[in-house]
Formats: sequence, C-alpha cells, structure tokens
Amino acid sequence: MDSKVAEFDLIERIRRRIATRSDVLLGIGDDAALLQLPAGMQLVVAMDTLNSGVHFPPETAPADIGWKALAVNLSDLAAMGALPAWCTLSLSLPDANSDFVDGFLDGFLALAEQHDIALVGGDTARGPLSICVTVHGFIEPGTALRRDGACVGDDLWVSGSLGDAAAALSQWRAGGAIDPGLRARLDRPTPRVSLGRALRGIATSCIDISDGLLADLGHVCKASDVGVRVDVDALPASQALRACFDAEAIRRLQATGGDDYELCFSAPVELRSAVIESASTHAPVTRIGRIVSRNGVSALDASGVAWQPGQAGFRHFE
Amino acid sequence: MDSKVAEFDLIERIRRRIATRSDVLLGIGDDAALLQLPAGMQLVVAMDTLNSGVHFPPETAPADIGWKALAVNLSDLAAMGALPAWCTLSLSLPDANSDFVDGFLDGFLALAEQHDIALVGGDTARGPLSICVTVHGFIEPGTALRRDGACVGDDLWVSGSLGDAAAALSQWRAGGAIDPGLRARLDRPTPRVSLGRALRGIATSCIDISDGLLADLGHVCKASDVGVRVDVDALPASQALRACFDAEAIRRLQATGGDDYELCFSAPVELRSAVIESASTHAPVTRIGRIVSRNGVSALDASGVAWQPGQAGFRHFE
Repeated sequence: MDSKVAEFDLIERIRRRIATRSDVLLGIGDDAALLQLPAGMQLVVAMDTLNSGVHFPPETAPADIGWKALAVNLSDLAAMGALPAWCTLSLSLPDANSDFVDGFLDGFLALAEQHDIALVGGDTARGPLSICVTVHGFIEPGTALRRDGACVGDDLWVSGSLGDAAAALSQWRAGGAIDPGLRARLDRPTPRVSLGRALRGIATSCIDISDGLLADLGHVCKASDVGVRVDVDALPASQALRACFDAEAIRRLQATGGDDYELCFSAPVELRSAVIESASTHAPVTRIGRIVSRNGVSALDASGVAWQPGQAGFRHFE
Repeated sequence: MDSKVAEFDLIERIRRRIATRSDVLLGIGDDAALLQLPAGMQLVVAMDTLNSGVHFPPETAPADIGWKALAVNLSDLAAMGALPAWCTLSLSLPDANSDFVDGFLDGFLALAEQHDIALVGGDTARGPLSICVTVHGFIEPGTALRRDGACVGDDLWVSGSLGDAAAALSQWRAGGAIDPGLRARLDRPTPRVSLGRALRGIATSCIDISDGLLADLGHVCKASDVGVRVDVDALPASQALRACFDAEAIRRLQATGGDDYELCFSAPVELRSAVIESASTHAPVTRIGRIVSRNGVSALDASGVAWQPGQAGFRHFE
C-alpha cells in the first residue's frame, strides 16, 4: 500500500475512536487544531518522547506503550498543578501496522478518558517506533507548582512509593521473572494529576520523579538555590519491592531509580496537616526530608550517616 | 558520559541560545512551560515529525534539518492564517552529539527568529535521529482558514511555484548532481506565514502542499464536499525546474510532488483583485483552477484534456 494512503488510513482509524470536548473548535482533520482556552486561565505545555528500546523494552505491549506515552506527559502537567485538556500525538511506526495502532490506542485513550483529555492533532510517520506527545493544560494565574519555590526549612514530601519501576527494569535486565506488580508500575505509571491540583497553594515547589529521586531533586536545588537532605530510610516502598529485594537494593532503587512518576514536593512545616488532608483523597504522601540552605542533594540513613548510591543516576532502559 | 547527564547538557546548550517573549511566563527548565494567551485569541496547534531517511536524506546538513523541522510546522500555522508564537522540540539523537545540536539550532533558531516564535520546552532523548516539533499560534475567533469552506465556483490559487522540492529529490534519487536552487527548496522551505495572515477574510479554504498538490486537494474536496478542477498547464514553475526537466516531468513534479509547503486556497471569483493585492507583498500567487460541484480532484491540460500523473501521490523521501 502507498505509504501516504496508509498514513491517511491510520489517521482516520485514530479519528474514529477519539472523544472530544466543547473547547476543541477544530480537532483532527485540518492543518492544525483550533482550541478555546477558558477565560482567565494560563496555558501549560509539556512534551515528551518515548523511543523503543530506550524508554521501554521492545516487547512491551502496544496498549502499555500507549498508556505510558500519555502518562509521562500528564505527569509533567501534574507536577505543575495543571488541569489536563488537550494533547497531540506523533506516532512513528516502521510500517502501517493497524493492529499495533489499535492496541496503542486502547491504552492511550483509556488514560485520556480518565483525565478528560482530548487528542486534537499530530501526525503518523514511517520510522523506527517512537511516540511523541504534547500535552496542554490550564492553570489559574499565580498557582503553578514550580521548581524554583522551595524554601529553607520546608519539609520534603513524596507521593506513593518509589523504586518499583526501576525494580521491574532490573528484573527484566536480569532475564528472570518480573514481578507483575512491579511491572505494572513500569508499564502503566499513574500520573498524580489530582494530587498536583490539590497541592496548589500548599506546596512551595514540585517535580515529578522521572530520572530518579536524587537526580530530579538536583533540579529543584538548582532552580530554588537551596539544598535538600533526604532521609533514605524514610522513602516509601511497596510490598512488592520489599518482597523482591534486600534493604540496600531497595534504597538504591528508590533513591536513583527513574520512571516512578510520583510527585516530590516541598511545603512549609506549618502546613503538614494541610498536606496530609489535601493529599488524602488522591495519593498517600510521605515526609522524606527537608530543604536546607546549600550543598545540593544529600542523602542520610536513619542514623544520620551519609548514604551514597552504588550507581549514580538512572539510565532508563538501555 | 552518563546519558542523562548528556541530556541535561544538551538542554542547557539549547536553553542558552534561545530567545524568549513576554508571554512566556516560564520556558525551558521546569516540568512544563507556562504561557499567556492574548485575551480574545484562540489557540492553534500543529505537530509534525521528521525522521531521518524518511523525510530528509540522511546526509542533509544539520542546519537544514533544523530549519525544515520548524518550517513544516509553521507551514501548518500558515495554512490556518495563524500568527506563530511558541514551539516545543523533541530531539531524538543516536548519541549526545553537541556539534549536531549546534548546527541544528543554527537553522531552527534562524527561522524561529524570523517569525518571533519562542522555543519553550520539549525534551532530548536517545534514539534514531528524529525531530518532533509542536507549534502554537494565535487566531482571531472566526477567521481561521480551514479545509471545509471551499464553495462551488471559487477560484483555486497557489502561492510561489510547485515541484522544486520533488525535483531535487528526483535528482538525488538519480544519484547525479542536484541543482542548488531546487535543493534549497527541498532543504529550506519557506512557510507562507504572512500570506496566510493576509488571506483571512478572503480565502474560503486553505491547505499547505506537503504531500503533493492533487493529494492535498483531495482533503479539501472531502472536507468541503466539493470537487476541484486543476489546470495542470497553469501550475507555476520556477526557472530552475524549467531548466532541468521536460514538460511532462514538470507537470508530474508540480501536480504530485510534495514538500513544496506552498499554500493552495480557494477564494470567490469577485475577490480576484483582493487576492492579488493582499498577496502581493507576501508571495506571488497563481490562479490554477476552480472549485466544482463534485467528482473529487480532476486535472486538465490547456486544451481541456484530462491529465493523469504517471506516478500517483508523493512518497516523501524513502
């Protein structure tokens, strides 16, 4: 089949399945989408790409790839406290494989529906499997959760649990069985959108954990011109993680493993109860450290001894 | 070098070179960009990807790749009559090659500067060379140039000249010398942004020629529920094209060659002088046919005989 015909067919296949919203004046099917931002709102835009063999193992199910491609982007909106609205999708495929596209859309659109986000445009192209998504959300002026607002003395918090995605990847690399609970965290991360919304007016800074807790906190330190002290023994771990790894491996996976897509945020000490109350209906939150005056990111164990990860940073899958 | 460190270094390299705008409240450096849409404007969003070996020959100069990646997206805004404002860039590279990135930015930012468009976010990732860009523009409500407004009896117009990019590709495929003028049209297309703006209130439909004139007109026919009759002997050709190809090859390249990024639009017959006057300072325009009641896209030669391209559709580079 002529590749352009195949592309039009794929786009039509996508168009037939998508939901829309009243603020989408013109969606898929023209040169560009036409969108109506609500009065008084500012626009929040993030863009992230997943490449096969780099950001996910090549044998990942198409539906999981679709879910994750949107999830990692929604996570960026969550980290800003934004309300998701629209997305565009660029899908590069080695061939016009409609089965792959159908499966991909199963995951992508399931998550889109959860967050009432409309797919409004993009393209399909021939090329190595790669998925690029741009998400658009709204935010009330002056309420965005940024990286540059952390204050000395603030508590440091994290949502959910850490290390599961990296643990699944570690099991995948080892070539043995992968715990299904861990694998689900790798393949179908939960973007903490409603938690991000709830933290407006409470958190002084926020970031999502994509590259690993310590690495991502480095960005907060730099942007806010502060340091951060992390209590590695306070990091929340799932049952599955505790069941599969020893204590030191758990610390390493939690502190340096990426792809968790939990929110890590700072908030004033006097707002501790407000944090717990606001978060309660959205996600568990754990206090894991404190903002200090300098010296970047330091990690201490429960006895106050400095802790160093055996392996610095997270390299995604590669 | 650790690949995440390399990624941060590349992002910093990009951040240092970009211009900003007063409506960019927060650009590169947080989880998402924070943008202020002007009051009363609607948002126009387009996204297009270029993959190496599919959308450009692998040996294309990095600066030309950068230019083209933004140009094909700006062309979509042009086809809507929108005013460009912001873009995001996702750059997948086989390795963290800073020389490539510097060259790429030379072309990308030169075009961005011409159109006062700010790069506000995106990501870099490891993977086969692929460039995904999302562009954002503004449009006054009710003035967007869409594909669905063509009316029976309207004139059909095209800007600039057609076939040069496909001609360069044809010479490239043949393995011989490539005419520099033709090659420039392939590598550095001119998005017709100011022409698109000038056509608001005049054109009844508009599309940019990316896949080939006849193929792209098929979308207009479908969206507007009309037919179109194209006079293939009226199609504008450059000097370079006339110098390098015979009459039948020229027709074929003009009618079916893609990557021209000219605007093709319909307008009422009584607005002929308005079209010429509005276009005059932006780009030459040529009347190439008429909107008719049905039967999709038909092409006729000067003597009124139906013309069929030897090769249907345009396959980009592949």
